Amino acid sequence: MSSTLRLSQRAEWAEGQPISDLMSRALAEPELISLAAGFVDQRTLPVEPTREALTSLFARESSAREALQYGTTPGFPPLRELLLSRLLDSDACCHELSIDQVVITAGSNQLLHLVSESLLDPGDIVLCAAPTYLVFLGTLGNVGARSVGVAIDQYGMVPEALEHSLRQLSEQGELRRVKAIYLVPYFDNPCGITMPLERRARIVGIAKRWSDGHQIHVIADEAYRDLRYEGEDVPSTLTVDDEGDTVIVTGTFSKSFSPGIRVGWGILPRHLIAPVCSQKGNIDFGSPNFSQHLMAEILTRGLFQPHLTRIQQSYRQKLQTMLAALHLQFGSLPGVRWVRPAGGLYVWVQLPAAISAGPDSPLFDVAVREGVLYVPGEYCYPNMGEPVRPNTMRLSFGVQTPEKIVQGVAALARAVRQVCPCGISGAGPHDP
Amino acid sequence: MSSTLRLSQRAEWAEGQPISDLMSRALAEPELISLAAGFVDQRTLPVEPTREALTSLFARESSAREALQYGTTPGFPPLRELLLSRLLDSDACCHELSIDQVVITAGSNQLLHLVSESLLDPGDIVLCAAPTYLVFLGTLGNVGARSVGVAIDQYGMVPEALEHSLRQLSEQGELRRVKAIYLVPYFDNPCGITMPLERRARIVGIAKRWSDGHQIHVIADEAYRDLRYEGEDVPSTLTVDDEGDTVIVTGTFSKSFSPGIRVGWGILPRHLIAPVCSQKGNIDFGSPNFSQHLMAEILTRGLFQPHLTRIQQSYRQKLQTMLAALHLQFGSLPGVRWVRPAGGLYVWVQLPAAISAGPDSPLFDVAVREGVLYVPGEYCYPNMGEPVRPNTMRLSFGVQTPEKIVQGVAALARAVRQVCPCGISGAGPHDP
Repeated sequence: MSSTLRLSQRAEWAEGQPISDLMSRALAEPELISLAAGFVDQRTLPVEPTREALTSLFARESSAREALQYGTTPGFPPLRELLLSRLLDSDACCHELSIDQVVITAGSNQLLHLVSESLLDPGDIVLCAAPTYLVFLGTLGNVGARSVGVAIDQYGMVPEALEHSLRQLSEQGELRRVKAIYLVPYFDNPCGITMPLERRARIVGIAKRWSDGHQIHVIADEAYRDLRYEGEDVPSTLTVDDEGDTVIVTGTFSKSFSPGIRVGWGILPRHLIAPVCSQKGNIDFGSPNFSQHLMAEILTRGLFQPHLTRIQQSYRQKLQTMLAALHLQFGSLPGVRWVRPAGGLYVWVQLPAAISAGPDSPLFDVAVREGVLYVPGEYCYPNMGEPVRPNTMRLSFGVQTPEKIVQGVAALARAVRQVCPCGISGAGPHDP
Repeated sequence: MSSTLRLSQRAEWAEGQPISDLMSRALAEPELISLAAGFVDQRTLPVEPTREALTSLFARESSAREALQYGTTPGFPPLRELLLSRLLDSDACCHELSIDQVVITAGSNQLLHLVSESLLDPGDIVLCAAPTYLVFLGTLGNVGARSVGVAIDQYGMVPEALEHSLRQLSEQGELRRVKAIYLVPYFDNPCGITMPLERRARIVGIAKRWSDGHQIHVIADEAYRDLRYEGEDVPSTLTVDDEGDTVIVTGTFSKSFSPGIRVGWGILPRHLIAPVCSQKGNIDFGSPNFSQHLMAEILTRGLFQPHLTRIQQSYRQKLQTMLAALHLQFGSLPGVRWVRPAGGLYVWVQLPAAISAGPDSPLFDVAVREGVLYVPGEYCYPNMGEPVRPNTMRLSFGVQTPEKIVQGVAALARAVRQVCPCGISGAGPHDP
């Protein structure tokens, strides 16, 4: 009999993550300076602290064995305790949380996936900043959910714009499909914007007010919180959820310690513990126990904080290098603007409206020819709501050395000048 | 506004894995002898080989850094090469496979999940042995798929019964919903049965013949292949798929090396590489790279095989102990039968038809009171097709010492005698 492949609806929905193509391109042309991938700096990976923690873990036969055995679905309890006590140290008002609410995942991405599985049916809506974290847009697409973009300003998602979107959706009879609002409150990916606590409180308030008949959750992706290079830490979005029923927080050690060990977590409202753990039980039965014991050892032995301080210094320097290079190269190009982040791994650049930076644009090709790769900003826009701005780029300063950052930005400027022979003075930093 | 939690359809479908409740019970009553969990033996976990591999990995700054960095979605290429060359060593005719077809996952369970996501829509059907691996039944339920049980004999799923099920489903207009046939060909969970290669070939042939309009895949879960304690190895189910378009194989180092490191894999027909990797990209962006580098180091340095030989010896002894204890305790109880496996971690026991061993049965309670925990066999039956046999139990000999196995089986016999005061002689080993 003749037969053909019939995939699931899910498989049809799952576009490959566009960033994967960029990564492949970067790997295929190693002389390219990639300002695209959000990888962490290879040179500052924590070889010594990890070695020390492993030695300590293997000094006791019993602790080594435990790390090599199965764990539980929500994760290694001492690690969850350590995460909670870190949170309590910085955000005193989180004292009502219990470790039951902490779930360990394979990076924060898996938590985003588990929450999506638990809350979203096909056609359901998540409101996101426009632009927002592109990988999460893929996750939403994969479960058949719709992402609706909300306008941003220099402090992130604009509460009035959010209200406006909710009102519109309500008028269209779509409010019952709105299940969550997604925020990246610290040095967001892709814009580098940090949302002040008061604004987060307003957004959480809006979520609660519009929870008519069913709860609208706020997913606060706090993956970058530890990567602050200036200014004071801001308390977690958990602290503005008085009832503890609205905010879901995710975090990860992927950026702040090691993506290879790949330990992330979620802090969940009580009513989501069982659903999220059920999904996790069906997907992988719990994240690798060895990685969890290793991270617990790293935290217990005080090896995390000194490493964090070290990489903050390194990334601070690279961020300053990138901002200086942008000023040097683009300061005289009219209509080129960028955001000055206080942390994270990204700088968001906006070109004059007439210049597309999309993956099929002349600029993208010329940039590759000039030796530099960036993430086209249009990848970061939700599929509904606020219009896509194709004249945008996400630049990452995480992976490259300061020298390469300077060269990469110079190559980018050569490319922009080639496609836009404007050459007039003006422009400069901008929020956003 | 008043609001209530509204979960996804998926969340409603996701029953907690029933085994989780048993594990919690075992943890809560530590004096219980658990013959339930399929954990591996804590005492034989590979502390020394892992230490040696870690030392070697950290001897070179560059290799340590690579392990701490992000990897790719399908996994670390050298590890995939190593897996492929292990397969070629044992199954020469797998030479047409390429490493593109090898995907690294967080245990073989994640591969089962990814394949389910890629192939199954709600209502789709997977044909399984009755009984079969209970965790996979949970995975199927979670995506809204239906499992249909097919009768088994001493060699596993019966081809004639499979044909019969397919004919029935075809007559009911359901053939187009049949997407896969699931096999656990080596020392299966829960029965300990190994399916001869000729029968696998027949089943693959049936899958191809009934692939009318769309491909019916055979998922061969070869998780236990390495855990053989007697007899000759049997080639992989891959070797009976001449076109290479039907069989999906999963494997894992969780049982044969360490569940904590948690490295499993899938070997996919070419047409499933992209869909499965897309799902994986959206779920976790690739399995923890550190674990993959560690397993690659273990294989490269020849640390895997000696460990495997060691645990084979240990499990062989425990299996013999359990079989001897069953003979001693149940040999005189009429109607009690069990399967004699040549490997794996499980012995399947069938009680007289009148005695239920279900989780709410008197036997289960009396057994716990007598100090022993088992997996009720009814958890292992698909929700359609062959009827559930509540008079069955899965016993695992993996975790307990030989002494505890003897005590556990004795406690179980006391419990059975209490609920079934039959006491007549007869019975004995049986297939199955």
